[in-house]
Amino acid sequence: MPYIDAQMVEDIAIGAAFLGTGGGGDPYVGKLMALQAIEKYGPVELLNVEQLPDDAQIVPAAMMGAPTVLVEKVPSGEEVFRAFNMLKDYLGKEIYATIPIEAGGVNSMIPIAVAATQKLPLVDADGMGRAFPELQMVTYHLYGISATPMVIADEKGNTMLLKTVDNFWTENLARNATVVMGGSVMIAIYPMTGKDVKKAGIRNIVTYSAEIGKAIRLARQNDQNPVAALIKVTGGYPLFKGKIGDVIRRTTGGFVRGQAIISGIDDFRGSKLELHFQNENLIAIQDGRVAATVPDLICTVDAETAIPITTEGLRYGQRVVVVGIPCDEKWRTPKGIETVGPRYFGYDVDYVPVETLVKEVR
Amino acid sequence: MPYIDAQMVEDIAIGAAFLGTGGGGDPYVGKLMALQAIEKYGPVELLNVEQLPDDAQIVPAAMMGAPTVLVEKVPSGEEVFRAFNMLKDYLGKEIYATIPIEAGGVNSMIPIAVAATQKLPLVDADGMGRAFPELQMVTYHLYGISATPMVIADEKGNTMLLKTVDNFWTENLARNATVVMGGSVMIAIYPMTGKDVKKAGIRNIVTYSAEIGKAIRLARQNDQNPVAALIKVTGGYPLFKGKIGDVIRRTTGGFVRGQAIISGIDDFRGSKLELHFQNENLIAIQDGRVAATVPDLICTVDAETAIPITTEGLRYGQRVVVVGIPCDEKWRTPKGIETVGPRYFGYDVDYVPVETLVKEVR
Repeated sequence: MPYIDAQMVEDIAIGAAFLGTGGGGDPYVGKLMALQAIEKYGPVELLNVEQLPDDAQIVPAAMMGAPTVLVEKVPSGEEVFRAFNMLKDYLGKEIYATIPIEAGGVNSMIPIAVAATQKLPLVDADGMGRAFPELQMVTYHLYGISATPMVIADEKGNTMLLKTVDNFWTENLARNATVVMGGSVMIAIYPMTGKDVKKAGIRNIVTYSAEIGKAIRLARQNDQNPVAALIKVTGGYPLFKGKIGDVIRRTTGGFVRGQAIISGIDDFRGSKLELHFQNENLIAIQDGRVAATVPDLICTVDAETAIPITTEGLRYGQRVVVVGIPCDEKWRTPKGIETVGPRYFGYDVDYVPVETLVKEVR
Repeated sequence: MPYIDAQMVEDIAIGAAFLGTGGGGDPYVGKLMALQAIEKYGPVELLNVEQLPDDAQIVPAAMMGAPTVLVEKVPSGEEVFRAFNMLKDYLGKEIYATIPIEAGGVNSMIPIAVAATQKLPLVDADGMGRAFPELQMVTYHLYGISATPMVIADEKGNTMLLKTVDNFWTENLARNATVVMGGSVMIAIYPMTGKDVKKAGIRNIVTYSAEIGKAIRLARQNDQNPVAALIKVTGGYPLFKGKIGDVIRRTTGGFVRGQAIISGIDDFRGSKLELHFQNENLIAIQDGRVAATVPDLICTVDAETAIPITTEGLRYGQRVVVVGIPCDEKWRTPKGIETVGPRYFGYDVDYVPVETLVKEVR
């Protein structure tokens, strides 16, 4: 039976921050919460989706809001446990296990901290296989699972339980509450059965995150090229290498929105990449040509260390590699594209899989 | 044992709309809800506060939001019952009775509709003895009673349960949710014990509302002066008589804010009254001199019929009488004045009781 220990937490934090495509919050804050919980309560059991009884009650725990705010407003841990317990009380059913809602710096770590503290196992799956900015942007939604009952908790001690008519109303009401509560909050959401997770979840995401983090770590320890190791373990496409120029970033409506201009170096000298984001990287445009769009993963890492860079961590002068990764097949359905494709975010382009776009250039 | 029947509903609607000082919503909408419920489920038992067991669970039910919106968005009744039931489930305790939170056109009627439908008695008390625009503006708050757990329900089917650290956070979060939900919602709030109501409630408000409505009704039936009958039954002060000129009204942040200018007629010819409101009438200024302020009641009625006029019902050319009524003594404490006095609403004047202000003029 595999367990998540402190070393695996370090690896997952890096790997999930990479899969978080710039969003999901600062990996450092989430990691501290998970490490403290594991030190105090012991390692966390990791369950394969196939091990779940069909009627088991599974509850994802997560952070919601603008990651920029989270950096200044470190969660105490108390609020996520409060959210989790209020939902458990409301459901009136024992929780069998917790599960990440997405891969990302904070939201890959919070479920580990909750699992340790509540002495629950963690399910090796999530609802995105990456990170996305809105609550209905999960594969659970594509399969008709309700986001509510959900609970929101802030660090002051306020809690809110929502029951909505659809997942867009959940997003609308919870997003506004997040802003009023100070910009970032903890949530317990999408309570599901084991059967739901088998049908709608993206499997093995925790293990995959750990493998990515481990590959980067071992390459750095052995003086190998960490970016090459990252490309090898993910099978991703190196879309661009360059130096970050202007970064425009603003926090509005509970999101961090903006763009970065990257000037090519090495093989990409003379070329420019425009990276647009809303918490997560949404679209990469190279010299006026679309290089990749959501729902495919657009990941920015440090060109030397392969350490993932969040959208709020983008700084002038950084040397970065931008990597494209094909998203899970569940996102490539008509409902998936409608929910998280480029047009949903206001870009007037059709979705073309990143592997096709890469071939067109070569 | 007194019961509320259809005739008493009519009288309460008029009397409470008067005590609502311009706020509390259109009496017509609330009255329809109460009358339909009584017709279907029978008259509602009215309990004197002294009849309540100390440990009885009492739950107020009310409308929250801008009355202007409510006029266009008639509640179906279903949402207030949903709010009430969700709170009951959360408390895990049977509800002994419901109670109005305030006197006003809608919020004196909704508890009657809930009582009829849920087959519960109604307590003859409220938390204001009038109407006020914010959730912490109740005598319950003055006695340290928490507004939460509370439930908000909209007509679309969304519900929200709040647990907050204080009653100002309740107001803040609930007000924002109200705006997102469309401007007016139904709530179940301030769950209390019988002991709490005995200590913090304003007694006999339902009976008093009915007496006011009855006095106006009988005067009109008997061709007597309804305004004189109103003054007699309330012991109020006729502050002004005039014709409404300019009315400025805007709906912002879930409130109707504005002012009306009234030009004196009869004894008040040549004089002008400025009436400022935020859902309710807040301050009346006659020719630059304060004539009355919150927490005292400033009530506008039709000069011929004595029918109360809500702030959203104020129209150019209406002939009105403005009546001042001393508020409950609970509001005249330092904490009461701090909570609902003129300075809380942004007016740079000290609170002076209306009976003192009236004497100063004479």
